[in-house]
Amino acid sequence: MTFANVGTLGAQPGSRDALVAILTRPSADLAAAGCLRYDVGVSAEHPDTVFVVELWVDAESHHASLGLPSVRAAIDEAMPLLSGDMGGFRFDVVGSPLGGAA
Amino acid sequence: MTFANVGTLGAQPGSRDALVAILTRPSADLAAAGCLRYDVGVSAEHPDTVFVVELWVDAESHHASLGLPSVRAAIDEAMPLLSGDMGGFRFDVVGSPLGGAA
Repeated sequence: MTFANVGTLGAQPGSRDALVAILTRPSADLAAAGCLRYDVGVSAEHPDTVFVVELWVDAESHHASLGLPSVRAAIDEAMPLLSGDMGGFRFDVVGSPLGGAA
Repeated sequence: MTFANVGTLGAQPGSRDALVAILTRPSADLAAAGCLRYDVGVSAEHPDTVFVVELWVDAESHHASLGLPSVRAAIDEAMPLLSGDMGGFRFDVVGSPLGGAA
């Protein structure tokens, strides 16, 4: 069942775009691990926040991806840029009015 | 610029699945209005919450969709099922490690 992980990452002041650069660095590993979408974004209303929407083939694939060397390296690189202010939620996709998304 | 609208909708107790049914009803209008994805989901940890991730070609398309007769009818139908507890965030997608998403 398609799994969604949606989150907000607070960045240290001035570090938002560096954090975006890490999160958007091209990765063949993610798709190979079962990642269907990984959209990274920003909002003028929240200048020190990075937003992420991830869709995975299932929750297990997402969990397993956190152990990949390239993902662990990216987390280590991002960690000093984070403020510690994080939010978000996870859910199982059950359908879509567009059809075919679950 | 791709626009993301991510939200949680609190449902009246026992009404979650009816709310999911309204939100996942097939709609040709949404894609025609610029909706790229509209994923609806649930979580065992939050039994009275419906989760939605929407991706649109731009923020204006999302805003304009709220005036479509079919969307207004769905909102009217869903309203009595809502608890009033809502959350979420909106952002502009700036990139993806998978490539080609922004």
